[in-house]
Amino acid sequence: MRQANDTRLWIIEALGMRFAEPSHETLSQRLYVALRELIQQGRLAPGCALPSSRRLAAALGLGRNTVLTAIDRLIAEGFLLARSGAGVFVADWQPTRDVPDSSETPSARLSQRGARILDFSATLGERHAAFAPGVPALDCLPRERWQRLLRRHQQRAPAAWFDYPTEGGLPALREALCDYLRLSRSVRCEAGRILITQGAQQGFELIARLLADPGDSVWMEEPGYGGAQACFHSAGLAMTPVPVDEAGMNVASLPANAPEPRLIYVTPSHQYPSGVTLSLPRRAALLERAKRHDAWIIEDDYDSEFRYASAPIAAMQGLREDARVIYVGTFSKVLYPGMRLGYLVLPPALVEPFRRANARLHREGQYVIQAALADFMAEGHFGRHVARMRERYRGRQARLRAALAPAVEKGLSLSDGQAGMHLVAGVDSLELEEALVARGRKAGIQLSPLSRFYLETPGRPGLVLGYAAASEEAIDTAGAWLATAWLELTGRG
Amino acid sequence: MRQANDTRLWIIEALGMRFAEPSHETLSQRLYVALRELIQQGRLAPGCALPSSRRLAAALGLGRNTVLTAIDRLIAEGFLLARSGAGVFVADWQPTRDVPDSSETPSARLSQRGARILDFSATLGERHAAFAPGVPALDCLPRERWQRLLRRHQQRAPAAWFDYPTEGGLPALREALCDYLRLSRSVRCEAGRILITQGAQQGFELIARLLADPGDSVWMEEPGYGGAQACFHSAGLAMTPVPVDEAGMNVASLPANAPEPRLIYVTPSHQYPSGVTLSLPRRAALLERAKRHDAWIIEDDYDSEFRYASAPIAAMQGLREDARVIYVGTFSKVLYPGMRLGYLVLPPALVEPFRRANARLHREGQYVIQAALADFMAEGHFGRHVARMRERYRGRQARLRAALAPAVEKGLSLSDGQAGMHLVAGVDSLELEEALVARGRKAGIQLSPLSRFYLETPGRPGLVLGYAAASEEAIDTAGAWLATAWLELTGRG
Repeated sequence: MRQANDTRLWIIEALGMRFAEPSHETLSQRLYVALRELIQQGRLAPGCALPSSRRLAAALGLGRNTVLTAIDRLIAEGFLLARSGAGVFVADWQPTRDVPDSSETPSARLSQRGARILDFSATLGERHAAFAPGVPALDCLPRERWQRLLRRHQQRAPAAWFDYPTEGGLPALREALCDYLRLSRSVRCEAGRILITQGAQQGFELIARLLADPGDSVWMEEPGYGGAQACFHSAGLAMTPVPVDEAGMNVASLPANAPEPRLIYVTPSHQYPSGVTLSLPRRAALLERAKRHDAWIIEDDYDSEFRYASAPIAAMQGLREDARVIYVGTFSKVLYPGMRLGYLVLPPALVEPFRRANARLHREGQYVIQAALADFMAEGHFGRHVARMRERYRGRQARLRAALAPAVEKGLSLSDGQAGMHLVAGVDSLELEEALVARGRKAGIQLSPLSRFYLETPGRPGLVLGYAAASEEAIDTAGAWLATAWLELTGRG
Repeated sequence: MRQANDTRLWIIEALGMRFAEPSHETLSQRLYVALRELIQQGRLAPGCALPSSRRLAAALGLGRNTVLTAIDRLIAEGFLLARSGAGVFVADWQPTRDVPDSSETPSARLSQRGARILDFSATLGERHAAFAPGVPALDCLPRERWQRLLRRHQQRAPAAWFDYPTEGGLPALREALCDYLRLSRSVRCEAGRILITQGAQQGFELIARLLADPGDSVWMEEPGYGGAQACFHSAGLAMTPVPVDEAGMNVASLPANAPEPRLIYVTPSHQYPSGVTLSLPRRAALLERAKRHDAWIIEDDYDSEFRYASAPIAAMQGLREDARVIYVGTFSKVLYPGMRLGYLVLPPALVEPFRRANARLHREGQYVIQAALADFMAEGHFGRHVARMRERYRGRQARLRAALAPAVEKGLSLSDGQAGMHLVAGVDSLELEEALVARGRKAGIQLSPLSRFYLETPGRPGLVLGYAAASEEAIDTAGAWLATAWLELTGRG
């Protein structure tokens, strides 16, 4: 072992070398880091005495306060020990070391559910306006109006909006939403039954955890929405796929020994991704099944505003007073996803537990944005924006159909429906699906493989084509590209 | 059964009565709702023929298009059927009704975990600045500067910020954070290892689900943070309480047969709620335990910026290159909770899975706020705000100690520490704790019972007193009130 005096000289030398390097850190910070590293690397052993602060300061050309600040910090952190009258020593900070330190970074072993969650994330890749599904026309946002409303509330915001609110969402927004949902969606509602969430996903999370335990069964549309699948899986629920036909989810097709559901997830207005509408008899039957099983229906009404040929289909939630339905809505489709606001309409008995659990698990926030949104709705801008977007999407859908016509003439099948923000193209095989998706990726065109929307593999092959976010020109170009690619790959060109 | 003609007259009469009531809905909407109700209530039976639209319009004094709009919607929804040439009939929409319709609203049976989540939410009650724990000084926010930065980015925001971003947070914010964490928190970091989340809770959610399966064990500080407890419980994890003493979490006190941890949750800089600092030997020991068990340490560094007497304690994460630590930070304490932004610093191997799972389970958003925050940090406002708040909280803590001095003189124990945003007062019994909390509730003073922070009951009695959000005057008043209440209830006055 080095003599104490030697060590002191060596410390000064080692530190001096560090100070020769350029840095934008403060001198005290640099001294702190340098000393700490010497200790952590074991180059300064426990018990070893530091030079006095006066000597260190002189040798390194630093102010004494600079040195003291660094040393005090290392004492506070436990790397150094001050012994009254005797000076400062390196502490015995490292306990028994039965695991050798290594410079390897830790490896990543995910949990089983974690690995499965990533499976559900496979469709989240690069995003391209043509044909990203579920993305609205971001080029058509009324940005000036929106900024004006945000500014208004940023200035006026009471301090409570910056705190942890626990009231379930800004009352003004819940009032405006309530009026809208009653009138436009035939939802049975009072403002007090609405819980504002940070997006629909957070609503699914709350439902899955407050109303179901691990191992409980949730009936899922097959094919269905990956976001809901990932959420329910991560909550430990057992998903039972229920086939979707032209009248929507068909619970009658389930075998008699299908697991009794605790939750039933459904997109009745415009099934995602197939685009069909759940028929009225099926709706009534589903409500009865929920009642019989004491289960809850999760009605995900993500894009119901966009029906071009008729008024929007009324929500299931409003069909019966005793409907066991939790209605889930989002502003991601009617305004923009980055806003991260959605909502639940809850039966009265669930309002209080959901509000409290949400405040605990997720916290509330973004009250300035909520206030701007409340005004946006109450002042009529929301209704006008929806009407404008409806016309826009009708036009964009027609444009996509026209661009794909050369392929449709040769047998490419396209989903029906004057509604929504996407179409589904059926293709003949999984191989063809894969080939088209790969070719699209190279061309910067997002073709979402339909087969990935199925819980049970293999799913039906096809392509989910979002047209809402793409400009008319992009639809023309990408649509023509797709028609050509399909004709080439099928040999029908 | 009524004759067809009678029925038609009766329909017109029933509808006419509805139109006598005042309403702000459109005429078509009112007709739609009125007809739908007659059908849903069974007053218009399946098969029954509607009067012609012409006759309905004339009888009700409505335009024919108004009537057609309502009828078309009911046809689209499946309540009515149009038979070519024969008119419009009520559809057979209700399937076999083996469960009678009732006007009862559904009851609320929570899942087992849901009920337990509510237990963890018990401390979330009414909030009062004196003494809400964990809330910063909302009266000291640099609101003008913050608004200016928000406006700047609202105007400039590219369309991609309104989409579903999947990049893990705005790069500029991650860069600014990285500089800050390296310098001020001694965190080993690159911008690419940071994942921006909607608050620290979302970070806990991701860790719990991606790195642990239901039934896996997580070691928890006892007493500890309710938000983390609720999250891990809801993720199905088994929580093992580890006693906290004056040197922090003491894993050496665990019995040899304690369940092997998959996760270890710890607040090393300033234990919540006790306020102690995890000693350096304990830190080193914990890092070794994590390595031995192949577990991950979750370092929740929620308020480490606020040390009044020395520089902040360096983060555990930076102690060793191979530290199995995920560092969790939040802007809720240094800026404001309603912002809902937090972050994780991940080991390189976990960056990609966490980014993808977050985009799938929670979605990203609020890029305008992220951009404002990036500038707020890069332009130095953040550092100045933290320094200002540090002085402020130092003053507020001193003020609280002074206000409580009459009780402390008579034996009320107060936690040590020149740090953080709260103090803990020990009280003699759970009965006294309860009596003080109840008295505080009546007086509009928030006394958070320490015993509720324990997983294993009964916990130690005490009061967690947040002083950061309360004005100096409020601290004087509420502190004096508390001292008096304590003196009275203990009979030491």
